[in-house]
Amino acid sequence: MNEDSTAPRGTVKPLDGESAHLAIERHLRDLVASRPVGDRLPSTRTLVLEHAASPLTVQRALQRLVLEGLIETRPGAGSFVARRHSVHRADFGWQTTALGAARTGADAIGTAMANAGPGVIALHSGYPAEELLPTRLVRSALVRAARTNTAVERAPISGLPELRSWFAAELAPAGASVAAPPAADDVVITPGGQSALSSIFRALANPGDAIVMESPTYWGAMAAARQAGLRIVPIARGTTAPTAADLDDALGASGARLFYAQPHFANPTGALWSSSERSAITAVLHARGAYLIEDDWAHDFGIDADAAPLAADDADGHIVYVRSLTKSLSPAVRVAAVVARGPALARIQVDRTVDDLYVSGILQAAAVDVLTDPGWRSHLSRLRGSLRGRRDEMARQVRGQLGADALELVPRGGLNLWVRTNDGVDVAGLARRAAAEGVLFSPGGDWFPAEPTGSFFRLNYSRARPELFEPAVGILARLLA
Amino acid sequence: MNEDSTAPRGTVKPLDGESAHLAIERHLRDLVASRPVGDRLPSTRTLVLEHAASPLTVQRALQRLVLEGLIETRPGAGSFVARRHSVHRADFGWQTTALGAARTGADAIGTAMANAGPGVIALHSGYPAEELLPTRLVRSALVRAARTNTAVERAPISGLPELRSWFAAELAPAGASVAAPPAADDVVITPGGQSALSSIFRALANPGDAIVMESPTYWGAMAAARQAGLRIVPIARGTTAPTAADLDDALGASGARLFYAQPHFANPTGALWSSSERSAITAVLHARGAYLIEDDWAHDFGIDADAAPLAADDADGHIVYVRSLTKSLSPAVRVAAVVARGPALARIQVDRTVDDLYVSGILQAAAVDVLTDPGWRSHLSRLRGSLRGRRDEMARQVRGQLGADALELVPRGGLNLWVRTNDGVDVAGLARRAAAEGVLFSPGGDWFPAEPTGSFFRLNYSRARPELFEPAVGILARLLA
Repeated sequence: MNEDSTAPRGTVKPLDGESAHLAIERHLRDLVASRPVGDRLPSTRTLVLEHAASPLTVQRALQRLVLEGLIETRPGAGSFVARRHSVHRADFGWQTTALGAARTGADAIGTAMANAGPGVIALHSGYPAEELLPTRLVRSALVRAARTNTAVERAPISGLPELRSWFAAELAPAGASVAAPPAADDVVITPGGQSALSSIFRALANPGDAIVMESPTYWGAMAAARQAGLRIVPIARGTTAPTAADLDDALGASGARLFYAQPHFANPTGALWSSSERSAITAVLHARGAYLIEDDWAHDFGIDADAAPLAADDADGHIVYVRSLTKSLSPAVRVAAVVARGPALARIQVDRTVDDLYVSGILQAAAVDVLTDPGWRSHLSRLRGSLRGRRDEMARQVRGQLGADALELVPRGGLNLWVRTNDGVDVAGLARRAAAEGVLFSPGGDWFPAEPTGSFFRLNYSRARPELFEPAVGILARLLA
Repeated sequence: MNEDSTAPRGTVKPLDGESAHLAIERHLRDLVASRPVGDRLPSTRTLVLEHAASPLTVQRALQRLVLEGLIETRPGAGSFVARRHSVHRADFGWQTTALGAARTGADAIGTAMANAGPGVIALHSGYPAEELLPTRLVRSALVRAARTNTAVERAPISGLPELRSWFAAELAPAGASVAAPPAADDVVITPGGQSALSSIFRALANPGDAIVMESPTYWGAMAAARQAGLRIVPIARGTTAPTAADLDDALGASGARLFYAQPHFANPTGALWSSSERSAITAVLHARGAYLIEDDWAHDFGIDADAAPLAADDADGHIVYVRSLTKSLSPAVRVAAVVARGPALARIQVDRTVDDLYVSGILQAAAVDVLTDPGWRSHLSRLRGSLRGRRDEMARQVRGQLGADALELVPRGGLNLWVRTNDGVDVAGLARRAAAEGVLFSPGGDWFPAEPTGSFFRLNYSRARPELFEPAVGILARLLA
């Protein structure tokens, strides 16, 4: 009887919730750390017995540590603690000269992208909790798509025809009274809404050009515009749309041909353009020969109102429309669409293709599968109810604990409350102190193209569990007191 | 007994190879085209019987046509031929003024991206045939990943740690004598190699800056550089690397800090830098304080030689390394990596995040699954044999039918032969005439930053079936005669 077969079965226990794979990996890391270089490690057979795991699981754990250079395997002889690489202190000084000053720093990336550790109350994130996603539909759609040709073929550069049709039809449902309904050919599929904005800004303007934006507005749009070399011209908005006069002045004075906005449930304020505001703004666009880049980011997150895209009624191509499925289907389904007409469409398509060629076909096929499943409609109506409950609970906590004037507007859709506190409060400092107590939120400074016009912050009600809203807002109230 | 139940079962036959879903869709389209607006269409039940299909399949086909606006459904009443939208003739003239002259036209997109119809012999494409991909591994990896959290969670902005480790370990295998092995932290995951190049060019240079490139070189790199506003400075290469003196002159005269190249099995020429050429070029990079953007596009396509990345031995961050998995795993697994050190890495990461936030986690998880499967190594060795057979057959046909001097080099890896024909031959015209006879290839003009230095074209041997190489090259020989 050799050494291996005497090893007791399952003697190394996994930690709570740890997979067999990770338990074996941890065990091997401990061994490597405690033993000299060249020392022989237990055989696969021994590890199989000690962990009561399959040989495949053991092989994968060994393979991982081989990849990291911690273990060397010699065929027929076994696995050994690998020789450590010597430490090299690199000289990157030459890069300072080569690169010159930075145009965009890491601070361009909003705090909304920070990863929250376990136990943290995440009111900063822009991504809804799993319970608000159609996860069952998404998983089975991905499994089905994995078996189709879309898993092994290159997708067309404009996107899958079925998905392009779906986006076009969403803008102009059959029977709707729409003057010039967009067609599938007016749609370009992109890997997410951010990529859509980046391409639009690069394609429709030149470095140095101006672009008008609402203030406050989405940090990612500001970052993408600056990356494209554009100069942001802010126009104020509160709970209403920017005025037509302001827009006209800004376009006229700056020479900008682009106006970026979120007419529905704007991020971060939650405001919604009224029907008369829409008409007034459209008239300015026509008079000035300008584009509205309509970011319909919250199309699926209407609560007391539905998003009604301006792009549906756009006969002469003044609206460049963006809609993403990432937040409503799954963060892994990186799929969005740009709808545009005329030369603008052609330029955006060229930029997209040069930027990254095409979007993975399997993600597009899975999206079509979910969106044409009868379960998608029922998911959306359940989602509306869940968002209403969450929004109302967060609004109740904010008004109750931070004061009735902390909320100017309870938004009729979207994922966020835009909270105002006393002028002079250092909101960035508040965010640091709250983070130390386990509450993350997004300070107002991230959302203004220029200096913030007051002490604002954004609370997202779609991610943390609603029963945590009370203690989280409680912590903010205490820190503000 | 009502009308529906008398419909004979399965009376409408699908065409050869057509799915039930598509057969029903075709049937409905025929009905819509032949009937007046408002006419009632057959009930779901009738369609189920006529097509011997499931109600779900029928519902999906109906839904598709509803999306396209061809059919209207009224709950309880049935489906009807929809009212046609009136035709609107749009006025896009204003966009000419708004947009100004185009910087990048559609001709920036190489002919390699053209979609080939059925029956065409595709020697133009850059994407290997399905039989050269590990499709079984890819499909099962996607199915497995669809069941993990990566299908419903946002991936980290730099990429999945396991995938970053894998790319780093590939550059510096355990036991290799590498001075400063890259670590997982030096890796940024991108949605494909093209996206990696776009981000690198934007992040490491400013509009107006120069970038040195081999000539001929990859069309996508030229397009991405021009999109970033860079000026391409070409240096000639034939079957060898550019000379160190040429590179030194080009960097010195242009002030460029970037040199883009494919040291292994370059696209389109297939050339491979020798060990002394590598050293000479590295010395110039150090002396000039410049970066080499090493595009290791054919890492998995070595035939008589292996790719040995310069980035493996790069202590001070002069090499920015790009490796994509799209061509070797599946066109649907849009995953690549940039490996860089120092401030360059940080700038590339910021550009990537601003450009499109993050890469779908499920694609990354599936990639890790395939790459750590024991089947991946055996796939790679089978692939090498298949590519050798294809390359040799294509080389035999080219030399036999186009003359021995048509090929200066039989590449030791990669997917293409670079063919030269008599000076003065109009290769673009030849491509059009060959396309009319069902043979697609990529004319040399796509691959030169400036005027082509001769009449070249590229034949890809990885996509069409090898038994078609003889007739395809025969057509070219006849057209050239």
